[in-house]
Amino acid sequence: MSFDHTKYQPFPVIDKPDRRWPSQRIEKAPLWAAVDLRDGNQALIKPMSVAQKRTFFQMLVELGFKEIEVGFPSASQIDFDFCRALIEEDLVPDDVHIQVLTQAREDLIARTFESLKGAKNAIVHIYNATSPTFREQVFNVDKAGCKTIAVRAAEWVRDFAAQQPDTHWSFQYSPETFSATETDFAIEVIDAVNAVWRPDQGQRVIINLPATVEVSTPNVFADQVELVHEKIQYRDDVIISVHTHDDRGCGVAAAEMAVMAGADRVEGTLLGNGERTGNMDLVTAGMNLYSQGIDPQIDFSRMKEIVALVEEITDIQTHPRHPYAGDLVFSAFSGSHQDAIRKCLARYQEGDIWNVAYLPIDPADVGRRYEEVVRINSQSGKGGVAHVLERDFGIDLPRWLQQELAKVVQQDAEEDGGEITSERVHRRFNSDYLSVPMGWVLRSYDLNRSNDQVQAQISIGDNSQPVTLLSGRGDGAMSALVDALNRRIGGDVKVVSFDEYSLGDNTEANAMACVRVQVGETVQSAVATAADTTAAALQAILSAVGRVQAAAEVRDVVDA
Amino acid sequence: MSFDHTKYQPFPVIDKPDRRWPSQRIEKAPLWAAVDLRDGNQALIKPMSVAQKRTFFQMLVELGFKEIEVGFPSASQIDFDFCRALIEEDLVPDDVHIQVLTQAREDLIARTFESLKGAKNAIVHIYNATSPTFREQVFNVDKAGCKTIAVRAAEWVRDFAAQQPDTHWSFQYSPETFSATETDFAIEVIDAVNAVWRPDQGQRVIINLPATVEVSTPNVFADQVELVHEKIQYRDDVIISVHTHDDRGCGVAAAEMAVMAGADRVEGTLLGNGERTGNMDLVTAGMNLYSQGIDPQIDFSRMKEIVALVEEITDIQTHPRHPYAGDLVFSAFSGSHQDAIRKCLARYQEGDIWNVAYLPIDPADVGRRYEEVVRINSQSGKGGVAHVLERDFGIDLPRWLQQELAKVVQQDAEEDGGEITSERVHRRFNSDYLSVPMGWVLRSYDLNRSNDQVQAQISIGDNSQPVTLLSGRGDGAMSALVDALNRRIGGDVKVVSFDEYSLGDNTEANAMACVRVQVGETVQSAVATAADTTAAALQAILSAVGRVQAAAEVRDVVDA
Repeated sequence: MSFDHTKYQPFPVIDKPDRRWPSQRIEKAPLWAAVDLRDGNQALIKPMSVAQKRTFFQMLVELGFKEIEVGFPSASQIDFDFCRALIEEDLVPDDVHIQVLTQAREDLIARTFESLKGAKNAIVHIYNATSPTFREQVFNVDKAGCKTIAVRAAEWVRDFAAQQPDTHWSFQYSPETFSATETDFAIEVIDAVNAVWRPDQGQRVIINLPATVEVSTPNVFADQVELVHEKIQYRDDVIISVHTHDDRGCGVAAAEMAVMAGADRVEGTLLGNGERTGNMDLVTAGMNLYSQGIDPQIDFSRMKEIVALVEEITDIQTHPRHPYAGDLVFSAFSGSHQDAIRKCLARYQEGDIWNVAYLPIDPADVGRRYEEVVRINSQSGKGGVAHVLERDFGIDLPRWLQQELAKVVQQDAEEDGGEITSERVHRRFNSDYLSVPMGWVLRSYDLNRSNDQVQAQISIGDNSQPVTLLSGRGDGAMSALVDALNRRIGGDVKVVSFDEYSLGDNTEANAMACVRVQVGETVQSAVATAADTTAAALQAILSAVGRVQAAAEVRDVVDA
Repeated sequence: MSFDHTKYQPFPVIDKPDRRWPSQRIEKAPLWAAVDLRDGNQALIKPMSVAQKRTFFQMLVELGFKEIEVGFPSASQIDFDFCRALIEEDLVPDDVHIQVLTQAREDLIARTFESLKGAKNAIVHIYNATSPTFREQVFNVDKAGCKTIAVRAAEWVRDFAAQQPDTHWSFQYSPETFSATETDFAIEVIDAVNAVWRPDQGQRVIINLPATVEVSTPNVFADQVELVHEKIQYRDDVIISVHTHDDRGCGVAAAEMAVMAGADRVEGTLLGNGERTGNMDLVTAGMNLYSQGIDPQIDFSRMKEIVALVEEITDIQTHPRHPYAGDLVFSAFSGSHQDAIRKCLARYQEGDIWNVAYLPIDPADVGRRYEEVVRINSQSGKGGVAHVLERDFGIDLPRWLQQELAKVVQQDAEEDGGEITSERVHRRFNSDYLSVPMGWVLRSYDLNRSNDQVQAQISIGDNSQPVTLLSGRGDGAMSALVDALNRRIGGDVKVVSFDEYSLGDNTEANAMACVRVQVGETVQSAVATAADTTAAALQAILSAVGRVQAAAEVRDVVDA
């Protein structure tokens, strides 16, 4: 049986009941280290060329990264050449550290230092795997042997660095597979390395704790990091870094909890590229801070450029649901979501605290348009339909008309099965409500008020129809028109809903009227815009009644 | 300034120092509820047709899901029709509950019950948003008003259900936006709903806690869930469910920690489709359990079918780094990773506990081939090259030859920039090591041993060359050949490395010899296979020396 859970074992619980991290909160950004050019690169089907590395490095610098792992120069000629180019062409700003990875072997460390000759600030990053699986199955060493590998590498790093004193060196050690290592043994190895490097004597040291493979829920990783944070020697002089992967889909959570547990620094890649399921995503982690009011120290407003560059270089498309960056992550199709977003956005003013339903951040912050937020399909309701009409055409409808139009649009969407553009909603609105039936254009009116009664003479028609004269009386212009229509068509005409809006100053037709009339058993709505409110109201009634009449004529023809 | 973190506020810490969840571990699968057909569907540009819903439902049933949210029938004719089809065509197995969502309005609840007429087991799921943003900005109600909405809906559900007593009803209530709601208020509303439903009197009740939008680190969500778990009335008679989203990339972590905090049930979708960044991914959450030795209760061995169906219906491609499901998640390009995987896989036997470096699960469990694991590009080293030759061609090389070949392959890869197929590695191996230079084919040998010395007569040549006779003496056949070669070409020939392997029984050429010879300053390796070990060894030496000679001749020509 190939699908058999019994061939796996649970990861042991870390016994740490006095854990403090769950009560902590993150109040500032950690030191970020971007490892796109190394860990990201080594997981690509087609690794980066020197030219691509240059472009990517430049972007990372511009975004604000201060520590950038640029490659594995002892293992790759391209990476070696790239290091040389960065240094010889002076492409590294003074406040940026370039970082290179090397295995814990003397010849490779020597070659690594060769690649860094002349660097201003450089981080030499050595590692050896410390977990039982690696000790027993891969390297065939015991704990002492494993520790010796680390210590000897630390000595080589120290000694080679001393020969290139013009560079400001940082030393970084990773107990690779830390998350799968007995934590007390990891601490033992870390202490042994620090006994060589002596961070207390001024050497800058980074102790990086990788979840090379994510093997547990992220709270367990946080417990492990907290143990290191509490127990290693020279803690105050050491930068604790974490490097998580996403094998269980929790790489960001693990890094965040590790920061609560005491980590100072987080390694990751833009959009999470990297081995297998990828590295921790710097975009998500950074924007998670941003959305909590914390300066991420990285300029993620350039999200579109980030996405475009990463896609080009990795040849991997960004998932449309990728947090903060995907195409669909600010979109709402569902009617109730749209309604809530519309109401909150209507209240939101520049400078306010952002507090909009369903949108954890303002899409504009990352270069997205509000146009993408509310999109219409068969799942949408009045809120969405009203929102797109208002947003794209400045048309603000009363609630009863929103509901009526939304039903029509939803039918269209169900029949089509796909998305309905705001242009199509607008066309539907125009044809069903705003268009004037043939023969029902308001040509002129003459209103005469005396004794609290209005006497109206109203002429209607259009170019292709003779003018018809209507006359009636009532409390106001509208009721006079209704009276005139009742005399004319002998029907039982009533206005059941009426709303009128000013459309602002910059438009010739600056009033919009929405009416719903009842003619006998038939209910019909219509909308009209006009230069004055009276004309708009009268036209809306005429359009509604005219549409009922036209439909009745069609029925008569069909019945006959 | 549009990129401005000061417009956001941090989510408040939950004051719960006595939290217990971080010491818990998950020991069995929660009750899963698949909401692909509702929450997943309402986030699609093109929502599912009834036919697509049928196909998807069928797959969910086959995979083992027992609770399946099938739609929002009061809001969508398609969903209503789909419900009717499921019931009228008897498509729901007896142990499967279908679940439908409805807003907390009487007319919609009535329509919902209409859609469920004749169902065997059905979950009616009502919700209202309870967070301050919704109360204040969207619905304009105070806390009491918000609670009343929930209580009245609960009453309607109870009363409508009583009219359809042949169905086994479960009632589900979600305080929507639970994660952004004051927890004590959420508990108050939940208790009010349960006071209507009375789970203690036998009514099956699910209290579902949504992170409608993910607004905090997942540990905070776990604290919130643990508070509900500890404080609600009738806890023992209530199923606590969670429904997380992925706005901060931590939806799976939040659900897992919620289970540690007391949740019994988890809602999600296959591959995490859903609003914005998506719902919690059932594949990742389920396989996370599986990889810890826990039966996920879902048959994820059908991963390829799952991916294909979800891609077809959502029109969203699975990210190549999606945990457990993506194309690249079991691949290693890096040399050291390949080396470690190779060593662990060589030890792994069917029935063992899985313990392979860099591979959290056996790819075969989800229908993936080992061929995908080790792939060769410029980041690869000897481990990978050796692995693909062994895996695909049964060729097992000594370490020194692995290193030599890996360098050549790496150069190819750096020049090409892309992936190198195992066929290409094999061709390179054949042309550089296994092929016999012209004129250097071993034709026959005559070995005569006496007085601890071997006298060798060896004839070489090939179809296009005259036969050359070599003769020499030494401790054994190889040293006699070396002696003969030294006499013949006057060079300083030495064998510096030698390994020979049996290739097993089923091959005519059942011995493979690998040699590295030194001729003057030149080092050259070669490999030969033959029916007997002696022939293989002699041919390997001849091939190596012949290759040096051929190169020297080329140099002579160029120099002349």
